[in-house]
Amino acid sequence: MTFEETTGSTLTPEAQVALDRATDSAHRHHDLLSDRAFHIKQSAVRDVFDISIQPGLISLAGGSPYLQSLPLDELADVSADIIRNHGLAALQYGPGQGLQELRELACEVMAAEGILDADPADIIITTGSQSAQDVAAKVFCNPGDVVLCEDPTYVGALNAFEAYEVDLQPVPMDSDGLVPAALEERIHSLRAAGKRIKFLYTIPSFNNPSGITLSAERRDAVVRICRENNILVLEDNPYGMLRFDGEPLVPLRANHPEDVLYLGSFSKIFAPGLRLGWALVPKHLFRRFYLACEAVVLCPSPLTQMITAAYLRDFDWMGRVEASRTFYAERCTAMLRALGEHMPDGVTWTVPDGGFFIWVSLPDGIDTYPLLTEAIDAGVVFIPGAAFTPGDAPSAQLRLAFSAVSPDEIAEGIRRLTPVIRRAVEGRAS
Amino acid sequence: MTFEETTGSTLTPEAQVALDRATDSAHRHHDLLSDRAFHIKQSAVRDVFDISIQPGLISLAGGSPYLQSLPLDELADVSADIIRNHGLAALQYGPGQGLQELRELACEVMAAEGILDADPADIIITTGSQSAQDVAAKVFCNPGDVVLCEDPTYVGALNAFEAYEVDLQPVPMDSDGLVPAALEERIHSLRAAGKRIKFLYTIPSFNNPSGITLSAERRDAVVRICRENNILVLEDNPYGMLRFDGEPLVPLRANHPEDVLYLGSFSKIFAPGLRLGWALVPKHLFRRFYLACEAVVLCPSPLTQMITAAYLRDFDWMGRVEASRTFYAERCTAMLRALGEHMPDGVTWTVPDGGFFIWVSLPDGIDTYPLLTEAIDAGVVFIPGAAFTPGDAPSAQLRLAFSAVSPDEIAEGIRRLTPVIRRAVEGRAS
Repeated sequence: MTFEETTGSTLTPEAQVALDRATDSAHRHHDLLSDRAFHIKQSAVRDVFDISIQPGLISLAGGSPYLQSLPLDELADVSADIIRNHGLAALQYGPGQGLQELRELACEVMAAEGILDADPADIIITTGSQSAQDVAAKVFCNPGDVVLCEDPTYVGALNAFEAYEVDLQPVPMDSDGLVPAALEERIHSLRAAGKRIKFLYTIPSFNNPSGITLSAERRDAVVRICRENNILVLEDNPYGMLRFDGEPLVPLRANHPEDVLYLGSFSKIFAPGLRLGWALVPKHLFRRFYLACEAVVLCPSPLTQMITAAYLRDFDWMGRVEASRTFYAERCTAMLRALGEHMPDGVTWTVPDGGFFIWVSLPDGIDTYPLLTEAIDAGVVFIPGAAFTPGDAPSAQLRLAFSAVSPDEIAEGIRRLTPVIRRAVEGRAS
Repeated sequence: MTFEETTGSTLTPEAQVALDRATDSAHRHHDLLSDRAFHIKQSAVRDVFDISIQPGLISLAGGSPYLQSLPLDELADVSADIIRNHGLAALQYGPGQGLQELRELACEVMAAEGILDADPADIIITTGSQSAQDVAAKVFCNPGDVVLCEDPTYVGALNAFEAYEVDLQPVPMDSDGLVPAALEERIHSLRAAGKRIKFLYTIPSFNNPSGITLSAERRDAVVRICRENNILVLEDNPYGMLRFDGEPLVPLRANHPEDVLYLGSFSKIFAPGLRLGWALVPKHLFRRFYLACEAVVLCPSPLTQMITAAYLRDFDWMGRVEASRTFYAERCTAMLRALGEHMPDGVTWTVPDGGFFIWVSLPDGIDTYPLLTEAIDAGVVFIPGAAFTPGDAPSAQLRLAFSAVSPDEIAEGIRRLTPVIRRAVEGRAS
């Protein structure tokens, strides 16, 4: 199956938007759509999800965690036991806030990263942290309100926020993450322009898609700047434990319980198919956030919560996280090595200390979106950089994920990608 | 645990709202909340969820399905098999639209109710139909847009819609459901007032909370009126199969594929703890609805989808539905009998043909909200009627659920409730 067959389109994102509007307006129900419906974009990551699983293709696109090290037989037994012996609770409606036991276990997970004061009463179990991002925009943002974010940042969060017609304002990063002076300057210029800034969305450790980590030195500064300007910090930390070596950096939330709304995820330390994450909410915001969560999903699944709780309670989950660090580090090294061997001059990339992603920069003026079709023809998939920044401007960047592919496949994938990149670089130079 | 200890409050809903505003405004982050955050209400159903499971109390509050007839041992084996042999797919991210097999099975479920032309390509698997209600308001409603609904209607849908600052306009029902003439008149007067009406939210079969069913004769008329006025119909049909006898009425969607967005749920024909439902979306609206679903949850859980698919594929799910009809009918009969024996003059109630609920009306002027505390002291829980209608006006009605309680407990619950009701009726008369 080709990219065109899968997505049904060879259109650029701009052309797709134009087509959607034309299609919508052909029907009398066009008038029924909300303004925000036109702000909800196709996710480039999801675009390529289906083709990523085609045989023969090497996917460096999706940030899927490596699950082969899960103890599937034991998890099968645990799940059977839950349904057999606790099925009437597991299969029934549950509390809207999530199960007490899982909220307590989430506190243990956070303690392992340096958040020592989390109270299970302040936690809401969410349907993945995607759902918590949606609720954050819902609870805090009127149309036109500003959300600050890293440039680049997670495409799913951008899509969730844009559905609320927010004004997404990217803030520059360098190799140490968000630049405090740039953050401060952006806040002041937005304020001067009369904008209302609601929160900073940040993935401080191993940012998706760049792999960049906010340095320890800058962490307090970023929160302090936000606090001084009465801006909430929405800290998304799915990868924090997946540091290749050394101790994880302390999350922003650790020293700033009042100013940081913290999002955790079981997807990377356990498994994404259970669709569970959590929000640790400052007490003064808890009730609003909780009610909005309940209005969206009523309650998270008791069954998947009980399976997750059993995994965290009865298995050596931390041992597996530690093993996976080594494992992801090897894959990252394999990708860095292949990039170093094959990429032409003028192409640069980040060197992450953890997480799932490397961010590749081609020379200015190259748009990586049209390269995706060529790459798929060559047997490899990536995500074009434009997905990870607000707006529809072309991007000379692309995201490569090393998390779900073996070192050999990574080497082969980069080898396949090289001529596509080389042609683009040479075409620009000529 | 008392009601006060559980909810932390003896406040009326109005007083709670005032308290929330005061609490919010005490913190500098108050300014960060969106306008819509103040529209998201506490769900009265969820309020009493926690106390409903206290030992000794008889809960006639929550509409939990009866799960004791599920084949738990076999489901345990099925789940273990899925994780053991398909765990890498079940525990990984999945397609945003949901699994093809489950979408095909949802078509079979709908076919059993008379929707014969559903295409799996037009279905999105959702995190319960609650999530589909949220997405519907998101995709269709700007602040101030009108959503029409039955009076009374499902509290969870009201909460989901109110989070988008819609103008909820209840339309009167009689014992045959929505009154077409009243619907037409309401549409015309709203239009005359310059209002934009986006959709009619309706539970045509065994409405929650009233148990009322839209008669076969009125079904086409309701859709025709909406169609003539370019109003979409959002049909929520979780209980349709749970008719006590006779053939289920054909859903509104069956004859109106272009004008009805249909919501189905696996919660009542299988189990709510998996948090799965589906939306069958008219083709011209599909893409907008799908993108909004993806922005909220990324994808539904592959694990719970695979378990649900296995249940629908390998088990006699229809046999269990048929058995449960008899079963729920017995409980409904027990409740009707107890009401007839015990309730004082001036109290009336609906006689449902299916579903989970009976709607009890006390004489005008009685507010059933304060009676809840008395009822809990007497050892029984119900949901006050005010929850099921937009606005905060007191209600002389209350909802009783018979789905999850044995006939003996139902009789005892009504016996406990009787003096509370009697005092209220006599107090008003005196």
